[in-house]
Amino acid sequence: MTGLLTDLYQLTMSAGYFEAGKAEEIATFELFFRHLPRYRNFVLAAGLEQVVEYLAKLNFTEEEIRYLKSLPQFKGVPEEFFDALRKLRFTGDLFAMREGTPVFAGEPFLTVRAPLLEAQIVETYLLASIGFQSLIATKAARMVEVAGGRAVVDFGTRRAHSPEAGVLAGRAAYIGGCVGTSNTETGFRYGIPVFGTAAHSWIQAFATEREAYERLQKLLGEATVYLIDTYDTIAGAKLAASLGRPLWGVRLDSGNLVELSRAVRKILDDAGMQDVKIMATSDLNEYKILEFAAARAPIDAFGVGTDLATSTDSPNLGVVYKLVELNGRSTAKFSEDKHTLPGAKQVFRFDSYDCVACSWECMGCEPGEGEARALLRPVLLGGKLVEPLPAVTAARQYAADSIQRLPTAIRSLFDTDQKYRVEHSAELVALYEKVQSENGLLRHRHAD
Amino acid sequence: MTGLLTDLYQLTMSAGYFEAGKAEEIATFELFFRHLPRYRNFVLAAGLEQVVEYLAKLNFTEEEIRYLKSLPQFKGVPEEFFDALRKLRFTGDLFAMREGTPVFAGEPFLTVRAPLLEAQIVETYLLASIGFQSLIATKAARMVEVAGGRAVVDFGTRRAHSPEAGVLAGRAAYIGGCVGTSNTETGFRYGIPVFGTAAHSWIQAFATEREAYERLQKLLGEATVYLIDTYDTIAGAKLAASLGRPLWGVRLDSGNLVELSRAVRKILDDAGMQDVKIMATSDLNEYKILEFAAARAPIDAFGVGTDLATSTDSPNLGVVYKLVELNGRSTAKFSEDKHTLPGAKQVFRFDSYDCVACSWECMGCEPGEGEARALLRPVLLGGKLVEPLPAVTAARQYAADSIQRLPTAIRSLFDTDQKYRVEHSAELVALYEKVQSENGLLRHRHAD
Repeated sequence: MTGLLTDLYQLTMSAGYFEAGKAEEIATFELFFRHLPRYRNFVLAAGLEQVVEYLAKLNFTEEEIRYLKSLPQFKGVPEEFFDALRKLRFTGDLFAMREGTPVFAGEPFLTVRAPLLEAQIVETYLLASIGFQSLIATKAARMVEVAGGRAVVDFGTRRAHSPEAGVLAGRAAYIGGCVGTSNTETGFRYGIPVFGTAAHSWIQAFATEREAYERLQKLLGEATVYLIDTYDTIAGAKLAASLGRPLWGVRLDSGNLVELSRAVRKILDDAGMQDVKIMATSDLNEYKILEFAAARAPIDAFGVGTDLATSTDSPNLGVVYKLVELNGRSTAKFSEDKHTLPGAKQVFRFDSYDCVACSWECMGCEPGEGEARALLRPVLLGGKLVEPLPAVTAARQYAADSIQRLPTAIRSLFDTDQKYRVEHSAELVALYEKVQSENGLLRHRHAD
Repeated sequence: MTGLLTDLYQLTMSAGYFEAGKAEEIATFELFFRHLPRYRNFVLAAGLEQVVEYLAKLNFTEEEIRYLKSLPQFKGVPEEFFDALRKLRFTGDLFAMREGTPVFAGEPFLTVRAPLLEAQIVETYLLASIGFQSLIATKAARMVEVAGGRAVVDFGTRRAHSPEAGVLAGRAAYIGGCVGTSNTETGFRYGIPVFGTAAHSWIQAFATEREAYERLQKLLGEATVYLIDTYDTIAGAKLAASLGRPLWGVRLDSGNLVELSRAVRKILDDAGMQDVKIMATSDLNEYKILEFAAARAPIDAFGVGTDLATSTDSPNLGVVYKLVELNGRSTAKFSEDKHTLPGAKQVFRFDSYDCVACSWECMGCEPGEGEARALLRPVLLGGKLVEPLPAVTAARQYAADSIQRLPTAIRSLFDTDQKYRVEHSAELVALYEKVQSENGLLRHRHAD
């Protein structure tokens, strides 16, 4: 049911590995990005739960196999290969960083060690799962950072890249620190808090704005939030104030939000409603929230949509999935500006820097001052879950704690010269040079 | 199974409509964007098929209803409302532009006319479906435009906003003019051609680059494409030339593609392989393809990934879904910079401009010279499909023909002062003023 959700070449290569007798060779692939995305000083890992679900379900139905056999690219491929696909289950090992871990360039989010056939086919799904959710968790963390304790809620599904992307964006945004999402499917699937107000259509659906407000107050009681800009924001605020309690707050969705929030705050305060909140929406992002904070605009909560669900200012993360070891042989690619480091790696996090070391078992880089934590932990061994994954609330807390520990400059919204330090262990550098030399490439290339 | 994939407020508003006795009132909503996205002179409509699938499947399971009842927002909502959700099916009308239609600001992609409860709940899914696929179809059309007849293939799933977004991006890219996609799930579901080459891991998996090439040639025959940059592009090209046929082509994935394509072309030509093709990949987009075209780089096909699947330079489309009529009463919102036009509309396309008229039946704008086509056509009536939707190949052809007819300036990659003309019929302008006046707003606001 999930096997075809991959790139064709993963399947043709798999057929080739099968014919070459290499399908069962044990391969190690690492998933990482080469460079931080534009405007980002760190990335927050997310999407592991969906990777584990996918690996548990990975299979091909008979109908899917019939489809593959109908393709010209599989003409002449022996039936034994399709039998192998029929039997395919993920039987390998998965090591991964916890969701909510800050990640830097070149550090594996996860490492797959499995028979080559399995490890190759899963590439596409793993990249799209980790890349997307990490992108959104990171974007959310930026907004939460500048919101300074005020609530940030995900309202982005409508602008997400497909409805399903909206569901997953809500999950990732929560890990990144949002208090919840408007997407009820996200709430249902993942147990994430859901929030909502009312739309302009609600106001328009009643003969008068007053009737629309009164109906909403009756319906939602203490959770009532009036959307006050359908016709005129100031008139809407006065109407809200005149209707009294119960009322959680009002929502501003257009105009100059700094000025309007002040005017609306005054109207509410003058009516003795100091505890009634002001929520702002309308194409918000971390830059606007930062300006509101600087202007001390009296806004208590932010509903963010488009910019969160699509990470508009930096809409993709260049994640790659690279073969680093096959049957015990370390390997790498040396393409111009795109070479990779050979061998399975571990990432050790020290107080203010990381060290990437050359193998799972490698403890070659001494902890030095402070205590080093090994970030890649076993998740699946022999296809079986080692222990239940942390709940999404635990991932969210882990993200908050981990971000708290990052150097201040790295937590800035803007580019910084004080890059986070990622070292390579001496053994890793030596292995890189050895593999490069074996490929006869020392003449052509220099190590970074 | 699909009911919860919406924003919470759609469901709380629905409960409110139900309690107010308004759930069955006939509502008309239009889905459109207010402004063209950054760097776009037109948008190509796509995603209608997924909207129709969703509307056909829309329902709530008992488990989903239990979830809703557990939420604080539904405390005190009467059981009758949940019964209404249990029985919910889409029974309304859907009018829509064909997939592949160029769309401009303010023109409805689609119009929903249905009981208010149904019409409200579907908003989120419709926006995310149409918004995303239209974004990607548009991006693909730009690449195809500048590729000037050379093949453009979607390789973007790995960088898409979730695996499912990758499947749908492949579909939308095909409608926009790509020759196909690497995503086999897209091929399987929608009958779209699938393509692929081989990855660096393939080259690395064999002891020598020569063995990797030979194995691929044996496997794929005439469809063989060598990826020649794993170690050294020029050496890879010479190796490819030495192995002879069968061979479809070689793929370049790093370095200066203009210079490398010339050098590789010469190596292939010198070996008498003038018909062997050169494919380029590596973070391509329409701007780079335009430069290759201007430099006359001998590249025959383009594989595009990240920038296509995420529309990187313009990663979202501000689609909205607005109530324009309820129980025969025209309505609009008048929020600052965000007002809408009341009443159900039709879009008439003339040879070089469009006219938006004030109702379905309105033929108020005379065809004038040339023949006007009414772009919104009935798709569902009373919840039933009027006729089968055009196949995705027909949508692709319709897009190509429609783009061909657009003014040259509109087809440019870059901003143009020669905007496409969209007129409003006199009746529509009069209706806008009437509704505004009824809301007592003429004092505050001016019509556009």
